[in-house]
Amino acid sequence: MRPRRVIGVDAGGTKLLGGVVGEDLVVHHRVHRLWRGEDLSGLLGTMVEAVEEARRASPEVEAVGFGIPSLMDSRSGQSVTSVHLPLDGVPFGDLMSERLDLPVVVENDANGAVLAEQRYGAARGASDVVLLTLGTGIGGGIVLGGELYRGSVGAAAELGHMVVDMNGPLCQGSCPNRGCLEAVASGTAIGREGAEVARRDPDSALGRAALQGVAMTGALVTELAHDGDGGARGVLTLVGERLGVGIANLVNIFNPEVVVVGGGAAAGGEMLLEPARRVVAERALRPSRDVVRIVSARFGPESGMLGSAALALDALGGA
Amino acid sequence: MRPRRVIGVDAGGTKLLGGVVGEDLVVHHRVHRLWRGEDLSGLLGTMVEAVEEARRASPEVEAVGFGIPSLMDSRSGQSVTSVHLPLDGVPFGDLMSERLDLPVVVENDANGAVLAEQRYGAARGASDVVLLTLGTGIGGGIVLGGELYRGSVGAAAELGHMVVDMNGPLCQGSCPNRGCLEAVASGTAIGREGAEVARRDPDSALGRAALQGVAMTGALVTELAHDGDGGARGVLTLVGERLGVGIANLVNIFNPEVVVVGGGAAAGGEMLLEPARRVVAERALRPSRDVVRIVSARFGPESGMLGSAALALDALGGA
Repeated sequence: MRPRRVIGVDAGGTKLLGGVVGEDLVVHHRVHRLWRGEDLSGLLGTMVEAVEEARRASPEVEAVGFGIPSLMDSRSGQSVTSVHLPLDGVPFGDLMSERLDLPVVVENDANGAVLAEQRYGAARGASDVVLLTLGTGIGGGIVLGGELYRGSVGAAAELGHMVVDMNGPLCQGSCPNRGCLEAVASGTAIGREGAEVARRDPDSALGRAALQGVAMTGALVTELAHDGDGGARGVLTLVGERLGVGIANLVNIFNPEVVVVGGGAAAGGEMLLEPARRVVAERALRPSRDVVRIVSARFGPESGMLGSAALALDALGGA
Repeated sequence: MRPRRVIGVDAGGTKLLGGVVGEDLVVHHRVHRLWRGEDLSGLLGTMVEAVEEARRASPEVEAVGFGIPSLMDSRSGQSVTSVHLPLDGVPFGDLMSERLDLPVVVENDANGAVLAEQRYGAARGASDVVLLTLGTGIGGGIVLGGELYRGSVGAAAELGHMVVDMNGPLCQGSCPNRGCLEAVASGTAIGREGAEVARRDPDSALGRAALQGVAMTGALVTELAHDGDGGARGVLTLVGERLGVGIANLVNIFNPEVVVVGGGAAAGGEMLLEPARRVVAERALRPSRDVVRIVSARFGPESGMLGSAALALDALGGA
C-alpha cells in the first residue's frame, strides 16, 4: 500500500506555514503566506490558495489538518474566539472542507504542536508535557497521561492568557485581560522591549536600526542578539525571566516531565531559556522544579504544521 | 456484610479535622486539634492522638486516610516539601502506619477535597473540575476526565503557588516565590488586609477590634463582614477580585465545567464568589468563561476530611 500523504497547515497571527507530509512525518513540499489585517474572506482565500499550491505539488493528498489560533468549541466545531485572527464564530472546518473538497481536521494550533513534540520530538517518551509557542502571541498545548488535554468543550490550554502581572499591561487582540504571559513575553513583547532600548540608547545596534526606520520586531531583536548586541541580549534576558515566571506556574500546576518552548519567536533559544530555567529554579516548588526539563521544540517553528498533519493522518486512521 | 468504616484526617496549616466515616460518607465522630509552630515530633504526636481518639469511638475502623498540605513524591511516598508544616523529606505514610498499626493512605489535602466534591458534592457529574481550598494558604486539586490529576511524580495542582503578581509580596512559609495567589488571596491575606483597614480607619468595626487587641485573622474579618461591616466587606470584595484573577487563569488553562472554592477561609461565601465571578466574566476568554460554574464546596471545610476518607475506602476496595 502506498504511504498516505496529507497537508498540514499552521495558521498563525501573521503568517501561514503549510506542507505536504507523509506518514513518516517527512515534509515533501512547503508553502508560505503572510497576512496582516485581512478580513475573513481574504484570510480564508489565502488559506485555500496555499493549500491548493501544496496540492498541485502532491495531488494524492487525502486530507488537510489546520492548526488555527482559536479557542474551539468541539461540540459545534466552531472557532468561537480568536485573539489574533477574524475567526470569531466561524464554522471553520465546514467552510474549508466545502471549498477544498477534502476531509478537513481543525485544531487549536498549539494543540497540534504539543502532539508533534510529544510523539516525535523534544518530549518523546514523556507522558505529561506542556508546550508554549512564542509568536505574535503565546499559544499553549497540554498532553497529560499521554493524551492531548482539550478541556470540557475543547478550549483549554490558553496558557498565554495566564495572568502573571494582574495590574500589568492590557493584553493583545481581542483578549480583555491584563498582564497575561502573552502581554509580557511574546514575540510582540520582545519587539516592544527592543523599541524601549532603542529609545533609551540611540547609539546601540537597536537604536541605529530604529533610526534607519527598520521595524522593531521580535525577529530583529533576536537577530541582533545572535550578533552579540548587548542591548538586544538584555531584552531576551528580561523576556526569558518573565517566561520563567510563567513556566514556574505551569511547573507548580502540572508537575510535568517536560516543558517545550517553540514558535518563531523562540529563535533566541538558550538566550531565552537559560534565564527562564534560572527563574524556575528560584521560584517553583520542589519536587516539581527538580524533575522538569525545559527544552526547545525539536521541530522549531514547524511543530504546529507537523502536528496538524499528524492529526489529519490520525483522522484517516494512518500515522 | 457490615459496612466499612475508616478515619479521614485533614491536616491543615494550623489545625486538624478528623472523622470516622462510613461507606455512605456519613461522619460518625469528629475530632479537632490546633497547632502552631510544633516541631515534627509534636506534630506527629498530635495527629496520632487525634486518630486514637476517633478510633476509641469506633474501634472497627479499618484504615486511615491523611490529607496533608505537602507536595508528595508518589515514587517514594515521601512528603517532599510542605509550605506550612515541618514535613519536608518525611516518609509520612510509613511513620503513621507504624505508629497506628493500621493501613494508611496519604494524599495532598486538596487532592482529597476535589475528589470528595467531584464524586459526591458541588461538582458531582462533572468530568473536569478544579478546586481551591482557602485557609492559611491556598491548596489546589484537579480532576480531569473524571480522574484525579497528580502530575508526573504526584506533586501537581499547587494552584495557590500560581503567580498572579510577579513583582508582588513574598509568599508564605517555605515558598520562595512572589505574588502567588496564596500571597494575595488566602485566609492569611484576608487577615492582613483587615489589619490594613483597621489601621486606616480606627473607628470601623475592624479598627475597634484591633484596638481591643483582638487578633486580626481571616475568620474575624469574615465574621464582621457577615455582621454587615463595610470595611470588612470591602476586604472580602478585594480578595474575591484577586481570587477571580486566579480563577480566570484556571478557566483559560483547564476549560473546566466547575471551579469549586472550599476551605475554612471561604466562609465569606458569596461575598468572595460574587466579585470573583465578575472578574472571571471580565478577564477570561470565551467559550470557557461562559461554560464554567464557580461554586462553593458542598462539604465546606469538611471536603478534605471526607476526601481523605474516600481515598482510604478506595484503598480497601470499598466506597
